[in-house]
Amino acid sequence: MPGHPSPTNPAGAFAAAQGAVVPVDHAAGADARHLSDRLTKPRGALGRLEALGAQLAAIAGVCPPPVPEPAAVAVFAADHGVVAEGVTPWPSEVTAQMVANLVGGGAAINVLARQIGAPVMVVDVGVATALPEGLASRGLIEARVRNGTGNIAVEQAMTAAQVAQALDLGAAIAAQLIAGGARCLVTGEMGIGNTTASAAIVAALCRRPPVEVTGRGTGIDDEMLARKVAVVEQALARLPGDADVLTLLTTIGGLEIAALAGFIVGGAAARVPVIADGLIAGAASLVADRFVPAARGYLIAGHRSSEPGASAALAMLGLDPVLDLELRLGEGTGACLAVPVVQASAHILREMATFDSAGVTDKDL
Amino acid sequence: MPGHPSPTNPAGAFAAAQGAVVPVDHAAGADARHLSDRLTKPRGALGRLEALGAQLAAIAGVCPPPVPEPAAVAVFAADHGVVAEGVTPWPSEVTAQMVANLVGGGAAINVLARQIGAPVMVVDVGVATALPEGLASRGLIEARVRNGTGNIAVEQAMTAAQVAQALDLGAAIAAQLIAGGARCLVTGEMGIGNTTASAAIVAALCRRPPVEVTGRGTGIDDEMLARKVAVVEQALARLPGDADVLTLLTTIGGLEIAALAGFIVGGAAARVPVIADGLIAGAASLVADRFVPAARGYLIAGHRSSEPGASAALAMLGLDPVLDLELRLGEGTGACLAVPVVQASAHILREMATFDSAGVTDKDL
Repeated sequence: MPGHPSPTNPAGAFAAAQGAVVPVDHAAGADARHLSDRLTKPRGALGRLEALGAQLAAIAGVCPPPVPEPAAVAVFAADHGVVAEGVTPWPSEVTAQMVANLVGGGAAINVLARQIGAPVMVVDVGVATALPEGLASRGLIEARVRNGTGNIAVEQAMTAAQVAQALDLGAAIAAQLIAGGARCLVTGEMGIGNTTASAAIVAALCRRPPVEVTGRGTGIDDEMLARKVAVVEQALARLPGDADVLTLLTTIGGLEIAALAGFIVGGAAARVPVIADGLIAGAASLVADRFVPAARGYLIAGHRSSEPGASAALAMLGLDPVLDLELRLGEGTGACLAVPVVQASAHILREMATFDSAGVTDKDL
Repeated sequence: MPGHPSPTNPAGAFAAAQGAVVPVDHAAGADARHLSDRLTKPRGALGRLEALGAQLAAIAGVCPPPVPEPAAVAVFAADHGVVAEGVTPWPSEVTAQMVANLVGGGAAINVLARQIGAPVMVVDVGVATALPEGLASRGLIEARVRNGTGNIAVEQAMTAAQVAQALDLGAAIAAQLIAGGARCLVTGEMGIGNTTASAAIVAALCRRPPVEVTGRGTGIDDEMLARKVAVVEQALARLPGDADVLTLLTTIGGLEIAALAGFIVGGAAARVPVIADGLIAGAASLVADRFVPAARGYLIAGHRSSEPGASAALAMLGLDPVLDLELRLGEGTGACLAVPVVQASAHILREMATFDSAGVTDKDL
């Protein structure tokens, strides 16, 4: 349809998604809990799997819920001008190199997504440097909004129009994956410096001191960590006291965080569960929640990253992560590993026998 | 080969397995850790997945390790005479009913095993009551050693010959599954009353007071829990101070715990990883470790059960569980859910690009 938002022409996709989100169906969730109690197992014995099954029913609005498959991963890549402050030991050209690696199928998320049969869509929403030739013909979505964010220690990350572009892009990517058959979205990202911007977002939206939510990212020493905390404080000092979420994104960024927020809202709009990865996804989830509070019900925390800011975001959102494997890689790896567990919760509700159907005696109550 | 141990004629299978276990190959494990450091990710960023990959390499004796697939589940079913003491609200006929449900494919483990493409072998090693007709033609392995154990509050669980039979059966089942192509074994069990026997085994082998390692099993109230603790104390009071592991099994049981110990040793003998489920598998792992200390290296703890005795067993064995989903169902459910994560660790080592191969710049060291 001409003018319909798409990754190549996403204008309006975020507003459309925002308007389409409805609260999850708590009655269907309650039905799932009741069904769970009739299955041939002690009540509650499947622990978190029962809660996940109820959430999937609430998301789909039906009990038992459909199995959320196939899954699809979107990896939003972007750079951060704040790397100029010395907050990471990784040179900034690594973002572009990793985009090539992601398109080539050699990154961790490619391996994990292949295992679960999920495609990986790689999106340049704001890489700072030139990418190798020919990646678009191998699947890269070229949708660069700008060449990385500004250095948030001293300047704005981006303009409000650029934030809108990134939000639209994320929502349009979600819509395209779902139109292509995806029934479970996995958040992924790549961007040298993005744990710094994410820590600042988490500090702002969870009202926590930067020192509590700023972590070692890809692995930094005490001196660099102290510098990173100071940079987060500098960036937050530039934020007006009454800042709304749009101002937060223009002040802090990043381009992939805004895109992920759009992606989450896009999934929620289509009533598809969105499995969030670690710290960056946590920051994006907080942002999505500020834009559309009802989107929260569609979010499943794939894992507890070892980054402290990730746990702060989960606590604020009331999300209980599926896995805790001490991962701190990003790309969507922890979320992707959680997919089979999430799918299992639906299989249980759909396929297990009940006490009645199996002729098993329930316990003496 | 005539006289070769098999599930129908398992005599000697445990001794053969015991003699075949060799320590895991720590050099291959170290190779995996070095390979992991060259993959396109920050060192250590895949957390527990890297440790699992190293363990799989050590188990297989080669780096990168083969992906441990397909998996196969064995569910050993048995009853416990101790239910006469009122330690569970479930009537004992439920074990037989659940065996029928397991053979029919309606239990939780059936659903989860189907999801990962693993067959479920259901084994009657000691159910107390009659089973419905016709289960053998639908796959049940009829290998009942006796009709449940004795009431361990007041009498021996079984004879030494019966322990040997159960150990042999478990080892023979492992050998048969591996001969059939399984490259990853999942421990499963079903038996009303088996958390009582398992708590007693854990208390004895971890030298912990019964009150610390006895849990609510399938869900019991405070009064029943107090009775359960007292029964565990009674059973342990019958154990000679210098008891070896064979005496422990004759005194406490159970038949499925002995079979699982044989199964674990059987997997280790074939250098196949064994993913252990919860409390009952933990007790069996402790037993297997006493028989063959080198078997420990082949064990992977699938999850942390919410039963306190399970955590005590894991701590004693130095095992760090893959999942923590507050499960307390048994049947192998938690171990089965962990299989994709374990397999992912091998995929990562086999398929990820290295910094060199992908042309990605490593961090400034």
